[in-house]
Amino acid sequence: MTTSEPATNLLFAAGSFHQGGTAVNTMPHRRFEVMRRPAGLLAATLVGLLLPGGAGAQAITDLQTARKGPLILKEQGSFYVGGRDVFSDAPRIVAGAPAPGDLTIEQLYVQYQVPADDNKHVPVVFVHGCCLSSKTWETTPDGRMGWAEYFVRTGHPTYLADQSSRARSGFNATIYNEVKLGMQPSTALPNILMGTHQFAWSVFRFGPSFGVAWPDEQFPVDKVDELYRQMIPDLNATLTPTANPTWANMAALAHQLGGAVLVGHSESSSYPTRAALIDPTGVRGIIQLETGCLTTLTPDQIAILARIPILIVVGDHMATSQPPPSCVTMMSQVNGAGGDMTFDLLPDLGLHGNSHMFMQDKNNLQVADVLLAWIAQHVEGKNGR
Amino acid sequence: MTTSEPATNLLFAAGSFHQGGTAVNTMPHRRFEVMRRPAGLLAATLVGLLLPGGAGAQAITDLQTARKGPLILKEQGSFYVGGRDVFSDAPRIVAGAPAPGDLTIEQLYVQYQVPADDNKHVPVVFVHGCCLSSKTWETTPDGRMGWAEYFVRTGHPTYLADQSSRARSGFNATIYNEVKLGMQPSTALPNILMGTHQFAWSVFRFGPSFGVAWPDEQFPVDKVDELYRQMIPDLNATLTPTANPTWANMAALAHQLGGAVLVGHSESSSYPTRAALIDPTGVRGIIQLETGCLTTLTPDQIAILARIPILIVVGDHMATSQPPPSCVTMMSQVNGAGGDMTFDLLPDLGLHGNSHMFMQDKNNLQVADVLLAWIAQHVEGKNGR
Repeated sequence: MTTSEPATNLLFAAGSFHQGGTAVNTMPHRRFEVMRRPAGLLAATLVGLLLPGGAGAQAITDLQTARKGPLILKEQGSFYVGGRDVFSDAPRIVAGAPAPGDLTIEQLYVQYQVPADDNKHVPVVFVHGCCLSSKTWETTPDGRMGWAEYFVRTGHPTYLADQSSRARSGFNATIYNEVKLGMQPSTALPNILMGTHQFAWSVFRFGPSFGVAWPDEQFPVDKVDELYRQMIPDLNATLTPTANPTWANMAALAHQLGGAVLVGHSESSSYPTRAALIDPTGVRGIIQLETGCLTTLTPDQIAILARIPILIVVGDHMATSQPPPSCVTMMSQVNGAGGDMTFDLLPDLGLHGNSHMFMQDKNNLQVADVLLAWIAQHVEGKNGR
Repeated sequence: MTTSEPATNLLFAAGSFHQGGTAVNTMPHRRFEVMRRPAGLLAATLVGLLLPGGAGAQAITDLQTARKGPLILKEQGSFYVGGRDVFSDAPRIVAGAPAPGDLTIEQLYVQYQVPADDNKHVPVVFVHGCCLSSKTWETTPDGRMGWAEYFVRTGHPTYLADQSSRARSGFNATIYNEVKLGMQPSTALPNILMGTHQFAWSVFRFGPSFGVAWPDEQFPVDKVDELYRQMIPDLNATLTPTANPTWANMAALAHQLGGAVLVGHSESSSYPTRAALIDPTGVRGIIQLETGCLTTLTPDQIAILARIPILIVVGDHMATSQPPPSCVTMMSQVNGAGGDMTFDLLPDLGLHGNSHMFMQDKNNLQVADVLLAWIAQHVEGKNGR
């Protein structure tokens, strides 16, 4: 099972659009069917946004209302999923304690909030992309509400996971100390990946050249310095690349929750699918944001994915408005087996100027409504709850 | 300005007690004066706990009540403080993007919650210790409420900061890639410090030998595996050791908040004081948990600290019930200049069996009440609000 995108695109999958490949004109592109299942505020908001001359003003008012007032939580907290114990011969390099001993590695840190009325909607698990952490889903660079709180306010128990080997999940630093101590050659060091400002501006599609924004750019580029502070070293290369433990940890989390929608972004866009292929029992929906898709799926794997609703969402200013070839392949496989896989390009839904980081864009809650209405229709509509 | 403890104790300051030094019999130990300023629930709870035959049952009931019901927030979110831009010639080591470019480093990630009624109490900023993250203050290993939520529930706007170079604050990984690329010798690698299970058991005072708990141990040792998952690499050695940017970032945060109590633990126990010495304008109180103290303070520095209430709290199973010599020195300097510096050993307050991680111990909320009542008396009592 591989992806059709080159290595760079596993990290920032949106790049696949820029690097192109053959354009596909006849694709299984399914439009967002907002009119079929009105879902109160969310649907009303989307109708207002999407219908020319529609109830736009009222919808925006409703949206603002949803953002106001105190946040009332039934419960919040944090915990770890997974991890395994290893012996480290180099927990430090200077004299003194700690002596060689046991470490826990590959665990997944999860932070969650459950809204006061928590039996309305399916839990949602968010996993961030390369060189970032769960900060991705919190307060935007210009101080607005992020997706994490918005999903709670719309009734979803919401879980944020720092990828295994990143941020509060930690990583196994033994190899770095071993090299310092001469126990390993420096060539044994795994890559540590850091996103530069220049790279972020380009790959996150803030504009045509560094410091120059697209005229309709939705990312708050005047506050881009706050995004640069969010960018932290990516140590995924310290993990087993063919079985990143984050995948199994996400599957275990979904199972533990008794069912959840898994959301991945960019580097992690394929993780919900990979989690489902390890253990689909808890995966009620898959959302891939700014993504390439898995290909070379086996028939058994296709059968698993055909039982799980899948949504792909990408923003604006892509080199092409067509899905990446890998997604066309996967969509035809999954939907050909009776599945429910949707590809949505935000401009097709009337949302223009969105960046790779559309969860932080100025219209981020309108983009969130695309996900929320899809969940209401394709996940909750089918499976009840 | 140095501390009198050896290097190891800067990381896990509790070690200073084990490594001893001369016992001090006549010390400026000021008992917790709970009876002088009753502060509603908190004081009532403490009175119940501390007075033999007192209203213990009722106090515990009150405590449980405070923990129940929905959590109502006026606001929550996250942001970064500080940071500076540097050019990195090695943001990655494999072929392809990103090319050399700019990174932001040394920023401080801060996550906060403001209770619905937020004009009652002073904001509190918590900074974790070595090999840990802000997870320290969240859900305990056995699933109970952590200090972060408890302080919000008692009316304090609460801020959790991941130390600069740790967790969601990120670190500058350039040197590691430079060594891999042969641009630097392996001897240039900074130490990465990891706490092993064995080290944690000993230094965090769970029991006399690995796997064996003290009979009255308050840490939930049956769930120690969850603590081990919290332990992540400490990259403070990548920073300038004489001016850790976390200190200035904490001072800037307190200033930005218009006043806050700064709390440090273990490795970071001295950070609130160091922050105040950089910029005291926002520092309304200093709380050092499980700590050694700064010595060789200048008269000007002593004058600054004499204007800020200071509390030191340590747990049980120390080698001695006396404050470490460094704290005796600092306390006599600060209080000699008219200051308000208190040293509290939890067993003297009737709380027995507490570990180095008492914010996660079974009686963690009772320990929190010690801090809360001190804030009410020494910070809010003096300065109004």
